[in-house]
Amino acid sequence: MSQSHQVAPFDYIIFGATGDLTMRKLLPALYYRLTMGQVPDTARIIGTARSPLSREEYQGRARDALKRFVKADDFDEDTVERFLDMVHYVSLDGSKAESNWDGLREVLSHKADEHVRVFYYATAPDLYGAISANLAKEGLVTDDSRVVLEKPIGIDLKTADEINEGVGKFFKEKNVFRIDHYLGKETVQNVIALRFANPLLEAVWSAEHIESVQITAGEVVGVEGRAAYYDNSGALRDMVQNHLLQVLCLVAMEKPASLEADAVRDAKVSVLKSLVPLDKDTLRNASVRAQYTAGHIKGATVEGYLDELGHESNTETYVALRAEIDTPRWKNVPFFIRTAKRLKKKVSEIVVTFRSPETSLFPARPGRNVLVIRIQPDEGVSWSFNVKDPTNDDFALWQSTMDVHFEKSFNTRYPDAYERLLLDAVRGYPVLFIRRDEVEAAWKWVAPVMEAWARNDVPMAHYPAGSWGPEEARAMLARDGQLWHEDME
Amino acid sequence: MSQSHQVAPFDYIIFGATGDLTMRKLLPALYYRLTMGQVPDTARIIGTARSPLSREEYQGRARDALKRFVKADDFDEDTVERFLDMVHYVSLDGSKAESNWDGLREVLSHKADEHVRVFYYATAPDLYGAISANLAKEGLVTDDSRVVLEKPIGIDLKTADEINEGVGKFFKEKNVFRIDHYLGKETVQNVIALRFANPLLEAVWSAEHIESVQITAGEVVGVEGRAAYYDNSGALRDMVQNHLLQVLCLVAMEKPASLEADAVRDAKVSVLKSLVPLDKDTLRNASVRAQYTAGHIKGATVEGYLDELGHESNTETYVALRAEIDTPRWKNVPFFIRTAKRLKKKVSEIVVTFRSPETSLFPARPGRNVLVIRIQPDEGVSWSFNVKDPTNDDFALWQSTMDVHFEKSFNTRYPDAYERLLLDAVRGYPVLFIRRDEVEAAWKWVAPVMEAWARNDVPMAHYPAGSWGPEEARAMLARDGQLWHEDME
Repeated sequence: MSQSHQVAPFDYIIFGATGDLTMRKLLPALYYRLTMGQVPDTARIIGTARSPLSREEYQGRARDALKRFVKADDFDEDTVERFLDMVHYVSLDGSKAESNWDGLREVLSHKADEHVRVFYYATAPDLYGAISANLAKEGLVTDDSRVVLEKPIGIDLKTADEINEGVGKFFKEKNVFRIDHYLGKETVQNVIALRFANPLLEAVWSAEHIESVQITAGEVVGVEGRAAYYDNSGALRDMVQNHLLQVLCLVAMEKPASLEADAVRDAKVSVLKSLVPLDKDTLRNASVRAQYTAGHIKGATVEGYLDELGHESNTETYVALRAEIDTPRWKNVPFFIRTAKRLKKKVSEIVVTFRSPETSLFPARPGRNVLVIRIQPDEGVSWSFNVKDPTNDDFALWQSTMDVHFEKSFNTRYPDAYERLLLDAVRGYPVLFIRRDEVEAAWKWVAPVMEAWARNDVPMAHYPAGSWGPEEARAMLARDGQLWHEDME
Repeated sequence: MSQSHQVAPFDYIIFGATGDLTMRKLLPALYYRLTMGQVPDTARIIGTARSPLSREEYQGRARDALKRFVKADDFDEDTVERFLDMVHYVSLDGSKAESNWDGLREVLSHKADEHVRVFYYATAPDLYGAISANLAKEGLVTDDSRVVLEKPIGIDLKTADEINEGVGKFFKEKNVFRIDHYLGKETVQNVIALRFANPLLEAVWSAEHIESVQITAGEVVGVEGRAAYYDNSGALRDMVQNHLLQVLCLVAMEKPASLEADAVRDAKVSVLKSLVPLDKDTLRNASVRAQYTAGHIKGATVEGYLDELGHESNTETYVALRAEIDTPRWKNVPFFIRTAKRLKKKVSEIVVTFRSPETSLFPARPGRNVLVIRIQPDEGVSWSFNVKDPTNDDFALWQSTMDVHFEKSFNTRYPDAYERLLLDAVRGYPVLFIRRDEVEAAWKWVAPVMEAWARNDVPMAHYPAGSWGPEEARAMLARDGQLWHEDME
């Protein structure tokens, strides 16, 4: 951890401080960075929410959160005490002009000039504009104040624009940090290192050698307890428009001029703008949506989505899309993206399938090389390649796989994505956050899918909980002569 | 083993049948292929040597050899009996015109027409011509008879020519199988599969991406008991001229038109002919020769070479050469070849070092990618590549290594090289044998080295037994900015 420096003293003001995200992710992330020496003891974490809690009561909740979400081995009583000393609480409804703004002002008035001020919006996104307006009206937005926006940035292009406008009136774009926690994952950033620091990969990273790319984010969990919320969103909005398109951008982008934020984001947005638009005709063959039905997860029977929800629904818990990128590098290479609840296995990964070499040298055509970048869990990389079958006196080939498991081989904890991102906002280092034009370009590409599905142009498919998804998704790949990873030998 | 078919019935006539090679390698190899179902029960193995042994006595020796050199688990009494039934013996001095040729003719007369006849010369190479002449005179060389020649084919170009002429007068070139057991090693053949069946490697297999190649064959053993023999040969003749140059050819050759014998051998000989000739001036910097001195092997003290030998000697137990290949593919790429006795570790491997990418994207220049093809022991492949350092919030890189161990991953025994080669000669499948022009081209390239060393143009260096060789070899690589594998991080 030697090269990860301590950041400047900061005030992190969290709106939605009693919510699940704060407890599960934000407080543990800041705690971990304190243990790593990156958080100065003078930093303050100022929770705000409507609940009328005392500072001590909120500190008690924060302690409970650490107890629950920090690994037992990492829970150090002294450090927890130091951490809780940083924690403040202001009972405040950020969306209301008339609320306890004086309370917040009071806390912030101490050492205001010396602290980097970061607002973190972990509330419903439709409140982001109002909170920003109130903060500005109360004179709490300084020239250098930053704001971190949690997803979702809208539910379509129009609402995204509204949110961005509402915030943008009071914060300069350079101070707006739209979080996409996928970009905080080390193995997602690793795509950049893999592609551009390794000649073996850089040399083959194009349509000349690559036959298809698949990006999967599958979960075993269903929508337990969040069915009502989830039903308003669906897999496409919840995962594809943001996370999976971001991963696609990193896989497909041209080499950026540098790793400065705008260079990388220019390269990414250029991918989004090069995505071939989907339309009514292509969508039938290029999109699959599905809901899980009752099935088995680890031996237990689980309900189907509609049963959990208790009513009919047109919301998908599974998406698979076929994207194409209209650049010379990716001419005719299908990019398959999928995400789902209640899949057989929890897996986030990128699977790059290379063309089988056109050679008649061997008795049979060589199998395809496959590179797998495992984002989570079991972060790592594997490469399946051809070797001579040692049991055969002709030149028959066998597929061999080499694999590296990073956590084991580096003997290091893989940090949660939020750790990195929370402090990057303090540092004013935006490379792993989403620029406004990226959000817009992503929504633009996704829009025809949402519209076609709303019109039921593409039928809703079904898959049993605990399976790998609907048959329709397998058929979609088969049309390109491809297989999903789990179907490869 | 399903695709490895049984060969035609054969008569293998071994000259030098009481020698070490026959006992240690040839008989066990044929036994293993019998267990695999590749040897028909009607085949015959006819040992010949000067010792006046009965068939039963020789069968006894063959049994002892199997007991000693076949793995205990693979020693099956029934199969051993079947094997010994195939074994015959003729007491005969093949180099003498007046000897027991009638005895050999008598054994061969049974089913002569139905059996493929293969002579195996495991005697001193200067007898190959005489044996061939005697066989011909006795009418035992049929049109289709094959002859397998053990190394060394001479001790220089002149003696190699004499041997090839002596044999070639009585055997057509297509029936002459010059054995190089390195080519029988599965992992050496695997170089062809790796290079031409995997786009990730084929695309980068040139000077554009490769910075250097090193080929090592190191042994821990010294010259125990063979000092007098070894002192006449030395590491250069014993290992470099044949085995290591063959491996170099497979690494460097252009893609052959097919895997037919002559296509592959054309491609290999073209590499040998493209080797930049070494001369007096270049040799000082491009060759290192050395003898081991007393040292430690696995905790035990061992003698130096000269002490074992008991007199002064100008013979090297260590060679390292720097070769260049004058083709567009390999322009300015040094190929380092080394072999030694009494090295720290037994290792045969190919190490391909790739150029560090010319990119300013990362805080520091990425480390070099390194691909290691382990020929023996622990057959496998590893690839060291760059990944993002997960403990660092900048884009620092770490070297990661993925590795595959074939024996473990394929769960198969790796056969000894001789198994494959002995039956290839029966099959008349010469791709893994050396063509005459290859032998000559290899001797031609090696000749200036032998001459310069004989003149003591290059001083004899020294290294302690159990070390990685002399400092001079390290210095040779350093001049190219390279490191031997054991010195890489």
